[in-house]
Order: sequence, then structure tokens, then C-alpha cells
Amino acid sequence: MKHSGKTSRRHILQIGAAAIGAGLLAQQKTLAAETPGKLGEPLGPYGDRSPFEKAVRWRRESKTPETGSSFTPLQDSVGTLTPSSLHYERHHAGIPTIDPSRHRLVIHGMVDRPLSLSVAEIRRLPSVTRTMVLECGGNSGSEWAASTGPDVQRSYGLVSCSEWTGVLLSLLLAEAGVRPGASWVIAEGADACRMERSIPLAKAMDDILVAYGQNGEALRPAQGYPLRLRIPGWEGNTNVKWLHSLKVTDQPYMARDETSKYSDLMPDGKARIFTYQMEAKSVITFPSGGQTLPGPGPYELTGLAWSGLGRIERVEVTTDGGRTWVPAQLQEPRLPMAFTRFRLPWRFDGRETVIASRATDESGYIQPSREALIAVRGTNSNYHFNGMKFWKVRADGTVSNVEA
Amino acid sequence: MKHSGKTSRRHILQIGAAAIGAGLLAQQKTLAAETPGKLGEPLGPYGDRSPFEKAVRWRRESKTPETGSSFTPLQDSVGTLTPSSLHYERHHAGIPTIDPSRHRLVIHGMVDRPLSLSVAEIRRLPSVTRTMVLECGGNSGSEWAASTGPDVQRSYGLVSCSEWTGVLLSLLLAEAGVRPGASWVIAEGADACRMERSIPLAKAMDDILVAYGQNGEALRPAQGYPLRLRIPGWEGNTNVKWLHSLKVTDQPYMARDETSKYSDLMPDGKARIFTYQMEAKSVITFPSGGQTLPGPGPYELTGLAWSGLGRIERVEVTTDGGRTWVPAQLQEPRLPMAFTRFRLPWRFDGRETVIASRATDESGYIQPSREALIAVRGTNSNYHFNGMKFWKVRADGTVSNVEA
Repeated sequence: MKHSGKTSRRHILQIGAAAIGAGLLAQQKTLAAETPGKLGEPLGPYGDRSPFEKAVRWRRESKTPETGSSFTPLQDSVGTLTPSSLHYERHHAGIPTIDPSRHRLVIHGMVDRPLSLSVAEIRRLPSVTRTMVLECGGNSGSEWAASTGPDVQRSYGLVSCSEWTGVLLSLLLAEAGVRPGASWVIAEGADACRMERSIPLAKAMDDILVAYGQNGEALRPAQGYPLRLRIPGWEGNTNVKWLHSLKVTDQPYMARDETSKYSDLMPDGKARIFTYQMEAKSVITFPSGGQTLPGPGPYELTGLAWSGLGRIERVEVTTDGGRTWVPAQLQEPRLPMAFTRFRLPWRFDGRETVIASRATDESGYIQPSREALIAVRGTNSNYHFNGMKFWKVRADGTVSNVEA
Repeated sequence: MKHSGKTSRRHILQIGAAAIGAGLLAQQKTLAAETPGKLGEPLGPYGDRSPFEKAVRWRRESKTPETGSSFTPLQDSVGTLTPSSLHYERHHAGIPTIDPSRHRLVIHGMVDRPLSLSVAEIRRLPSVTRTMVLECGGNSGSEWAASTGPDVQRSYGLVSCSEWTGVLLSLLLAEAGVRPGASWVIAEGADACRMERSIPLAKAMDDILVAYGQNGEALRPAQGYPLRLRIPGWEGNTNVKWLHSLKVTDQPYMARDETSKYSDLMPDGKARIFTYQMEAKSVITFPSGGQTLPGPGPYELTGLAWSGLGRIERVEVTTDGGRTWVPAQLQEPRLPMAFTRFRLPWRFDGRETVIASRATDESGYIQPSREALIAVRGTNSNYHFNGMKFWKVRADGTVSNVEA
């Protein structure tokens, strides 16, 4: 649907927007008169959102609120970025409060010149900026068993997209001088559980960032302030927060969070481990579970697609339960490993239907159906679910999971 | 400066990072022991930044804090986005508190079908997302007289960059049906002063957004919640906030803020009016006025470039007072009318010097020197200063305006 704006198209929108007669003009004047004639609020040092905006991260009630996950309200998302205040969280021992002037990153192990770098020193180094998704390996894990959350936030909300700024890890490792025979880097966080993950050296020498910036300012405490690993395309847990140690080794550590967790139990009882790579995925955010369409008529159907393998090339949408699929419009620029917003003008005719999206990335990877994914991986794993998500739109306009 | 990470380069950084001996490892262990062994802070619904981060917008002390400007702390910026909380403000009658469920946008005047649209109706329409700069026409106005602020925030901080989402104004005007003979659109805000600007119809039918989203959420009250005009490449004041009326006419209104203000008084006493277009501009944000380099050695010199005429093609930097200019690295993607981050590895040798940047955009426009600009426009205007900005770096590492 192109909008050239060159011609006057009668009623093309048909959204029920009121054409103004004398009555509506009077109504508008009344509304205008209600708005304050007195001065509004003053300028401020660090702004906040409108008190009418209520979107928040969701989390399960818990006796240990320092551990667990909080979910981004994707149903309220617009554009391609996630506000830092709404970026999903996944903590294993709470958020440490770190004074950056006392924090150091140590690079040691199989290196010629062990380094201890302050945050200020790291910020003096050549930096890069990159917009990319961060997604928990366990995002939409409840879909494996179809015991999914009632809305897109609770079922798919462990994913967010930010602009990250930092220093290439390869630069720091080159400065330290990696010794022959080294093949892994063990990253450790300064949280109470000393979160630890093993990173293959090849990836460490490729595109990993030691990030200090997020969305134009310092990264948030919940995102690892003052330093975190940002690993393009890899599951969230490997992006170690509150980073304080990088040890170069010749073997992985088989740490708790890469053995008891963040490994994928297969149907035969064996587990895949070091399954870092996130693949192509998409989900419709409007209309989605828990929302209600006010009535039949035209809507913009919209959602988000992303892939750890690169750029999104195509998103197809079905609005008839999978019988037909049509290509959605993709918002440019499509950045590799970042959210791509997709949109499709859609008319709800008032009859129950089922909608879904399917993403294809530049590697040629096509987001699978849930059934195809389960046929290969079974249902024992909590991780790496990237099947298509179907929403049911009922005649009364309410939207839910198809299972509901 | 490329970082292949493929080779070990001894001391290439030379930033004074400590090579670790036994003493430093012990120090690191002590630091690690200081970090809390107990659980950190819990997950939260809507996050905030670290208490150690102090950057705020700056404004002059005033008896009427509802009017005036607040400036983005560009010296603390990283990457290419401005956090919404730090987006510059320029208000003429304070920030109204608007309930979006009661707000309407009226499109009337020389149209076939006057419209009154709710925010919810507008959010159902086909939308677009675009990252772009907003800059006050008066940004860096004090540079005309060389009575500039002491730092980049106070001299250049009326500019910010966000990802904006909304509906094309051309779509709304097409739905309303613009009548023959119409040539202007009068935009009016719902603030107490009913800010009004006249927009040529040709631009209104081109690329203007009626925006409701900023950086992934609803735009902030200080940015016009729930609706504002976002006019790519045009001075901030035309981007009417709290937008509630668009009247199609056959002439401009010659409103207060396009005659007594936001017009450019020339040397001959005549004024240029409707000078909407912002041109190419850049400024070094590090090192910049008020900062102090801790000593000689390598640094990343960095700054921001932008143009209302399109994409930034080139930024040249001088570190020897203008004798020689070298091309800086430009962060990709370079989006038209958005901030482009530029960077240059630079070694401070401990001798006083003067640094500056000069941007060229895809139209071929080259940012002028202050002297060249004044030769054409004189010094009577407060608006549209885009001359090059020189900073003096002293032997002791302190940085200031060259005038200081």
C-alpha cells in the first residue's frame, strides 16, 4: 500500500474517523477549551514519560525477586528500538550496584601481557556502535509445551533491541597478546553468582563488543553497568553483564549456566551444549493476545522479526490460518541482527480467523512451524524455541493464543 | 585504523593500561571481594539509570521555568541516539498534561472532508519509522557573537536524535481531500500559547510525520505527547508539539513564531522568513570545552555530524588549528538527516593545539567556517548558525573555546 499523497482518495482509510459537521467542530472547540490556558509543566533535567503511559515489564510473583526474568511489553512497542527502561531482564543473583570509578576489567590467562583496564581507559579506545537484538535463550520456551503466556509480552517478551556502543573485544585481546594454543575465553560477571560463560576464541576475535553504551547513554544497571559483553546473534546469557574478568584458556569451563542450564535436552536424552546461535524469528505484536479490536474495519497488522544469522529478507503473514501467506512491508533500514518492523494493511471482516508471521533471513533460514521444530528437537528443551506464533482473532474482536 | 584482531600488536594502544604483575592481580582480587557477595537489586517494572550517572539537561536559571530551552549533554553522548530523557527542550508555554483518550487532531480548512481523529484512530493507520535529528533553529546561536557557552552542551546542545514513528501527514491530507488552490497548512499545538506555524503544502505532501512514537515508546510529554509534527530536515520550532489542529489554507498565517522569532535578520536590516531548512553541521564532543585530558597519549576523538539536506558524506577533522584536515571514520549506517557519529584515533602530544570538524553532506554542501557564514549573513541573526566549532586543548589537558 503506497501513499503517494498526490491524489485525494475518498474514504480509502475508512477507519470510522468522523467527518466534521458543525456539531463535531463545536465538540473540538470544547475540548480545546478544556486544555489548560495556564502555563504547563516546567523544563526538566532528566525527563520521564507521560503519567498516562503504563507499559511495564512483567514478572512472575516471587519470594526471590532478585532472580528470574522480566518481560518487555512488545504489544506496546513502536518502531524498532526497545526503551532501555523496558529492556527485558534475566538475572541470576540480582543487580549489583557498581561504582564505575572502582570497576576494572582484567584480561588474563593465556596472554602475553595481562591487562587491568579501568572503565575510563576502555572509553578512550577506538569504539564502534551497533544496533542489535538481545534475546534470552529461553525466550518463548513455554511454547514447546503449548503452555504459553496469554499475550505477546509473557510468551515472547524476553527479547529487546538497542543501540550498543563499546570496544571490540578483539582489540583488547590483541593488546593482551593471545598465546598459541588458546581457544576459549571465560567471561565472568561481578554479580553475586559470578555468572560465567565460555566463549570460543574465534567468536571473541570476530565481532564481540565490550559495551559501555546503550541507546545513547551508559548502559543501565539491569543491563550490566558499567560493562557487559555484547555478542551479536548469540543467546542473551552469553552476553555476560557486570563484566570484570576475561580469562583466555584452552578449554571451556563447563560452568553451571552452560551445563545445567542453557543446554538443550533432545528427545534421545542427550543434550546439545554451547548452542549459542539464535536463528530467525518473528511475532505479530498487533493484534496479539489480550488485545481487543474495537470492530470490523481496516487495521495495520504489525510485528517484529529478527535473526542472529543476519538481516531479515522477508516476512510473510497469514490472516487466514495459514492457507495463504502474503509478504509484509519491511521497515528500512534492515540492520543485521536487529529488530525489523513489519507491517501489513489488513481488514478485519468480523469473522473469527487465525493470524501468524514467518521470517526468512539473508542466510536463507526460514522460521519453522512449531510442529516442524518439535519433530526435530522434541519438547524436552526449554531453549531456542523460534517457531511461528499463531493468534486467534474472534468475531467479537478479542485476540488470544490458538490454544486458549 | 582497522582492528583485524588477527595479530598480536605489542603496545599499540599505549593507553597506560596496567600490565598485571602479582601486585595488580592481588588488587583485582581485593576489588572483587568488595563487590557484594549478597544478592543485588531485584527486577523492576520500568528501569532507571545508574545512580553514578549524572548527565542532565542544562538550562538557565529563570523565574519562568515553563519557557525557554534545556540543552542535551552532548559531551556525554555515545553512539547516534539521544536518550528521550535527555532530548533537548524548547517550550514557549510549558508542557501541557494531555490525556490521550480525550485528545483529537482536527484537519480542516480547504478540504473536502474535515476530519477529527482520535489518537487511537491515528495509531490504526499505516505507519512509518524514521531515525532523524531534531534541532532548534536557534541552536549554537550564541556563536554568531562569539559569546558562546563554555562547553558543547551549552553551545551546541539544542539538537538531539531519536527514532520517530507515526503516520505520513500526506496520508491524512489525502483522506481529508485538499481542495484546489490550497498551498499552506497551519499547524497548531495544544499548549497554552497555541504554538502555530505555517507549513508549505508541498512539504506537507512529501515526508512530514504526525508522530506518536519516539525511541520505541510513546513520545515524551516534553516532545509533544501524544502527537507532534516531525518534519525531516526542518528547524525544531516547525515540528509543532501537542498537535491538535491542521488547517489547510491558501496563505501563511505570519504567526508570532515565524515573524518576531525564527526569522533571520540580515546585515541590511531586512529579515529572511520561513527559513525552515537546516544545513550540514558537526561538532567534536570529545575532547570538548570543560573536559580535561588526563595526560598525553592516544585518545579517540569523536563527535556528531548531521544535515537537514540528507546523508553525511564526509567529516574532516583538524588537530592542528586548521592547517591540515584528515577524514574521520563515519559510523554506519549513515541515515539521512540523522546523527552520524565520527571518530578519529588521535595522539595528544602534550602541546597546546586547536581542533575542529567540518561536515559535507550528500548534496555537496560543506559546513562553512564561522567567518564565511558571517560574511554572508552578518551577526544580527540568532538563528541557523552552522559554522565550524574550534576547541582549544591546552598543554595541561584542559579544553575550552578558542575565545576563552
